[in-house]
Formats: sequence, C-alpha cells, structure tokens
Amino acid sequence: MKKYTEMTASELTEELDLARADYEKCLLEGLSLDMSRGKPNSEQLDTIEGLLSAVNKNADCYSDGVDVRNYGLTDGLPAAKKLFAELMEVSPDNVIVGGNSSLNMMYDVLAGFMLFGTGGGTPWCKLPKVKFLCPVPGYDRHFTVTEALGIEMINVRMTDEGPDMDEVRRLAESDESVKGIWCCPKYSNPEGVVYSDATVRAFAELKPAAKDFKIMWDNAYIVHFLENAPAKLLNIIDECEKAGCPDRAIEFVSTSKISYPGSGVAAMASGVGMIAELKKRIFPQTIGPNKLNQLMHVRYFKDLEGVLKVMRKHAVALRPRFDMVEGILERELGGKGIIEWKAPKGGYFVSVQVQKGTAKRVIELAGKAGVKLTPAGSAFPYKKDPDDSNIRIAPTYPPVEDLRKAMEVFTVAVRLAAAEKLLERK
Amino acid sequence: MKKYTEMTASELTEELDLARADYEKCLLEGLSLDMSRGKPNSEQLDTIEGLLSAVNKNADCYSDGVDVRNYGLTDGLPAAKKLFAELMEVSPDNVIVGGNSSLNMMYDVLAGFMLFGTGGGTPWCKLPKVKFLCPVPGYDRHFTVTEALGIEMINVRMTDEGPDMDEVRRLAESDESVKGIWCCPKYSNPEGVVYSDATVRAFAELKPAAKDFKIMWDNAYIVHFLENAPAKLLNIIDECEKAGCPDRAIEFVSTSKISYPGSGVAAMASGVGMIAELKKRIFPQTIGPNKLNQLMHVRYFKDLEGVLKVMRKHAVALRPRFDMVEGILERELGGKGIIEWKAPKGGYFVSVQVQKGTAKRVIELAGKAGVKLTPAGSAFPYKKDPDDSNIRIAPTYPPVEDLRKAMEVFTVAVRLAAAEKLLERK
Repeated sequence: MKKYTEMTASELTEELDLARADYEKCLLEGLSLDMSRGKPNSEQLDTIEGLLSAVNKNADCYSDGVDVRNYGLTDGLPAAKKLFAELMEVSPDNVIVGGNSSLNMMYDVLAGFMLFGTGGGTPWCKLPKVKFLCPVPGYDRHFTVTEALGIEMINVRMTDEGPDMDEVRRLAESDESVKGIWCCPKYSNPEGVVYSDATVRAFAELKPAAKDFKIMWDNAYIVHFLENAPAKLLNIIDECEKAGCPDRAIEFVSTSKISYPGSGVAAMASGVGMIAELKKRIFPQTIGPNKLNQLMHVRYFKDLEGVLKVMRKHAVALRPRFDMVEGILERELGGKGIIEWKAPKGGYFVSVQVQKGTAKRVIELAGKAGVKLTPAGSAFPYKKDPDDSNIRIAPTYPPVEDLRKAMEVFTVAVRLAAAEKLLERK
Repeated sequence: MKKYTEMTASELTEELDLARADYEKCLLEGLSLDMSRGKPNSEQLDTIEGLLSAVNKNADCYSDGVDVRNYGLTDGLPAAKKLFAELMEVSPDNVIVGGNSSLNMMYDVLAGFMLFGTGGGTPWCKLPKVKFLCPVPGYDRHFTVTEALGIEMINVRMTDEGPDMDEVRRLAESDESVKGIWCCPKYSNPEGVVYSDATVRAFAELKPAAKDFKIMWDNAYIVHFLENAPAKLLNIIDECEKAGCPDRAIEFVSTSKISYPGSGVAAMASGVGMIAELKKRIFPQTIGPNKLNQLMHVRYFKDLEGVLKVMRKHAVALRPRFDMVEGILERELGGKGIIEWKAPKGGYFVSVQVQKGTAKRVIELAGKAGVKLTPAGSAFPYKKDPDDSNIRIAPTYPPVEDLRKAMEVFTVAVRLAAAEKLLERK
C-alpha cells in the first residue's frame, strides 16, 4: 500500500474515483446513524436495573441518622461522601456531593469565582481579562462553560503524557490573568491519554503568576476502563497538599457513565480550605441536593468494589465497539498515511487526526450519507481546530451493526476528502 | 383581662413574677424541641410511599420517546413540563423543569442576570449599584440569595393584600437601580397572605424605571392549602402578557412540600422570550436535569388532580397543628395586648408580632428552655427587624405533643419578655 502523500496525481485521481464510487454506494443505503455524543448504550443502562428499586419503601429512606426525603445536608449525605471519597482516594472531609451533573458543578464553581473570586482574591468579573488554559483536543463542554463566562481560552498542545507542561509553565508562570486550566486527566476526552506521574507532579509544583490559579481536574473517566482495571493516576489532591498548595486543584467526578447520565450523582474534592469556601458559597444556592438519589446509589453500589463490578460489565459491553472501530480504521485506511489515532484503554472516544484541512469535509460527507459525527473543531476552544484535522468518534451509543455501517461510511469519507485535498496541491 | 399596656407598674410586676415562675417550671422540663424550619413531618412524607417505586424497572424508564436514564432535554421531560404547566396554569412552552430545588433555580436566574444581564441589558455586576425590593416580613432564603449576590435590599411593608403597591411603585418607578422584587404571592412566607387581584394587576401594570425589572414570583405554596382547596391567585404570567410585559415575571414552584423536600422537582415559568433566554443560559451549565426523578413524579401524581389529592392529605396532617398553635396563643395570650397574628389558610407558618423590642428576648428565653425557634429578624433583609417584633412559628415538623410543649414555653417567654420590656419604661 502506497501512502496517498507519495502518490502521483494520476494515482490519486484513481483513488478519488474509487472513493467516489464507494461513497455513491453509501448514499444509496439511506442511513440515519448518530455517532456524535459519548452516551452509554441501553445494554449498559440495563445492567443496573437494581438501582431503580434500591430505595423503594418509606423505611428505606433513613441513612446517617437523617430522613433523606427531608431538607438539609447542603454538602451531601455522609454515606455518599464516603463512597465518593473512596472513589477519589481522599478523605470524606475533602468531598462535596451534589446533584446529577458534574458539568453543573464545574460551571457553578467557575461562575462563583467570576462573581466572588476565590481565596480572598478579586472577583474575576471585576478583572479586565481572565484567561484559561485549554489542552487540545479537549472536551467541548468545558470550552462552552469558559466561553459562556467570557473567559479567554488559550490552546495548549496535548502530548502522550498529558498537556505540554513546558507550555503550561511558560503561560501560567508569566501571566497573572491566566487563572486556571481544564484537565481531563484519565482517559482524556477525546484522546484517551492518562496523565503521567511527572505531569501530575508538575501541576502541583507549578508556580503560577496568579495566586488564585485553579486546576479544574475533571476526572470524568476515573473508573471507565476498557481493559480489566482502571489505569493508575497520581492523586492530584495529595500532590497539591504535598507541594503546599492544597486548594489549587478541584477534582470532579460523577456516576453519569457509571449509573445513569440523566440521573447520576456528581461530586467534587479539594483541599479542606477550598471545600470550606465552596460549602459557604453553596449555602445560599440550595437547601440541599437530591439525597434520595444519593442514597439509591449508596445502597446499590455500596463501595468502590461495587462500582468496579459494574464498570467491568460496562467494559464488556464497550470493548467490542472500540475493537470494531479500530479494526475498520486499520483495514480500510491502514498504510494510506491519511489518518492517525491512538488506541484508548478507557474513556468514551477514539480521537483521530485525518489529513490536514479535511475534518470539516469528512464530517460533511458523512453527514450527507446519514452518519452524524461530532462537528469538526468541537474539541477545540471556539470550535476552531487550527489544522481542521481532529475528529472525535463516539462509538459507545449506536448498536454494533449501526456502528459498523457508520464506520464504513466514515472511512470512505476520509479517503474521499484526503484524495480531494491532496489533488488540490498537484 | 387587662392589657399589659394598661397595667400599673405593680400589676406588671405581678405578671412578671407569674411569668418567671412559669418559666422556671419550663426550665425544669429539660426540653429539646425544634420549631425553626418549615419542614414537612414524617406523617406527610409517608403518605406518598408509592413515589419511591413509581419507576422501578428498566421498562419503566421511557417517556416522550426518550430513555430518561440517558443524557438530554436541558429544559426538562415534556411530560413533566405538562404537569407543571397544569399546576401553574400556563402552556408547557412557558415552562422549564429542573432539578430538586426551586431556590437553586432562583439563585441561578439572578446569578445569570448578574453575570450576563437580561433582555440585552448590561450585566448587573457591571453596574455601580443593584437594588431589590423585599416585602417584609418575607422568606429568609430569598434575602440570603440577594445578599450573597451583593444586591442591596429595600424593605417594603406587607399589607393584607400583598406588598404595599404604592411603595413598590414609588421605589421601582423612580430609581433605575431597582431591578426587581421578591414575591411569595400565595400563603406568603411567613404571614400566609394571598395577594389580591388588584395587587397582581398592579405588578403587571408597574412602569419600572429599569427596563430589565424582574419579579421573582416564588409560588412556593401554590397548592399548599390548610382548608379544602387552594386559594385563587390571579395568574401573573397572563397578566404580564396582557399588560405588554410578558417577560417581567418569573414564576417558581417545586414539589418540595408536595412530594419530598430533599428530592422533589422544581420548575419555572415565564413569557416565551424569557424562557428562551433562560434555556440559552442553562445550556452551558448542564447536559440536563434528573429526568428519572421527573418521571417518578409524573407517574405518581399524573396530573393536577393527583397533586391536589396528596395536598388534601397534607392538609389533614397539618391542620391540627395550626389549630393547636392558634388555640394556645389565644388561650395563653388572648386579651393581653402583647401579641398579634393572622390565622393562615395555607402555607407553612404562623407569623406573630410580639411586644416591640422583645422578639430577640423571646427567642433567647425559649432557646434556654430548650425550644429552638427561627432566629429573630430572619424574615427581614440583613436579619434586621426594625421593630424586633416578628417571630415566625413553624408548626409543621414537630410531633403534636412536642409542638404543644414548645408553644406553651413560647407563650411564657412572650409574657415574660413583654412584662420586662414594659416595666423598663415605668
């Protein structure tokens, strides 16, 4: 197999004709498939039916000496704090358990920093400029939050060990308007990178110009392995404590992809100073989170081992999908030099780099053939991929047969767009 | 019975001695009772056991063509919108259904106005001064929200028909830094006032100096009657629509005291323009509310009649408590001229006015005798009751026997504090 980049114009034209013919066949299939979001599939959701009846009678509603049906416990049910503390490997004193959405917690934390500042610093909305570092490719919804809050986003390149820490140091240590960074440290969205120990330590040892620099540590895939056990990730809360900046990082997790995306439980952890500040800030906002849902989760999962047991079932449901995606990419595009990807060991995505300047075109072509993908550029701030090259494939939700068809359409679109683009240059 | 205010010093001293003797007896009882918060009691919570198993199996989790367990529907499950629309007498298009806390919704709405403004106006946090009108006595948690957001609060006197609308007009129509008002329009917290039709219309017809003046219409007790049916309240959304300001009022309700305070469902309604703005603002905050909990409520209550059926049971559980409170007040304090109260027809409180300058002392005395009451001044901005006279009695939560004892202690404290105060002047 010759690489596209090494082909002559006539060889490329031949490839283009083949790809066009294949694409015409795709169009005839009349597909309507959605590979755009990282959603669990019904098979996964069905495995935890017991959660629905985990609190079923009046007598079930008591925990930690309280009636969970009634008001109170702004920072969460103690039994839920214990479960999330075990998950995050911190003390329950470092934990706040909230509602159903960790994204909502992240938004609230940042909106609070905008309105009130943090650690006694100036409210960020009173500053002329607030900037945030955004490792790319990254999670689109992080960028939506910072953009909505009017925070300027600065791209930082991802490496195989996490964000480029030289770049993070250069930016954070020289500019006090750089107030923080988004991180998805384990099985990162979308590339599946697990931050190395050196990266985690470098975050703890960073000397930011801004005294109120915050690491938004979105550990969304903390136990979301595709193999047999979760990857090891150094504990950022511990490392920050050791480095003398215990309140620098705020870690977020949720059961959205452990139990149910629509009705899971979210939690956050940080140093006790930061937790005290956040509790004080939450007090005016609510009389308390949904403790009944927290208790349903505690009763069903019981402890970390209960969570891991369910995650092993999820892995069994998901692995064939990831294997299929990588198998089809390899079979249809291997050796052509027009795509690169990393095989993730966890998380919800396969992130691919197609021929530069063709990501939008690939998504357009796939869309016209009935295959909806995450829009091009989504994994970048302001939806601008400077290379127009990254595409996030979300293989978890569609039924396996749909996924196969969608991936076949996708590979045809990648070939067609690459041949078009390379011929432009001839 | 002679009024305290008409007594001679020696008569008052005799009363004081009697009250002191009664108080000494109270101290000996070693009570530990809590009448401080408006919480439903276990008897009420137990009546809706069926809610816990309303969605119990995987097959139960589908509604409106979606799997409620999965992501999506930022503004709520359509079936839940329909239920809340019926409750608020609006169209589902005017409704957003959210998480478990209407207080959280109110906070988010105001925090959004602070950060982003509303209706295209300047973000409130960029203005030199933002003020809010606060009918007093009112709900302490409203005031906590505005205080936390740095909004200056201005007291407006309550009348038997709602806030003093002459005063509201005078303040809102002359000062463009007055951006809104808190209202609890039906069975108001704490006095139980139902706003008259004239009051509701006056709100719709107000000509505020601020173009982005907002009415925070917290209809917390929309169906929380103590008699046989909810009081009639003119529909603020309709009236504002008719008056040409459809987006002026935002109505909030929740099932906190219909189903469970800790795990109910909250919703808001407004004109379609305001709803569109709020939906846009919610989008970055979350991928969606807890739809499973919404569906549990829809399946259990079904419709307004299902809600009213439960509320009639709540009324049966609550009425004897309110009757007892009023009976003891009348029996122990009637004719002494040292207390005034209105008998509420709904809601969760009895609001009393004790002898001016004695509310703090009454609460201190009751506290020392083991009866915890809502702190004095709680029903006022900055917790400052200018008359030190208002006390909010929350009779719903304690067991009936506890309530009886607590009220007896309370009346002794009222007598003792009044006699002390009036003797100071002699």
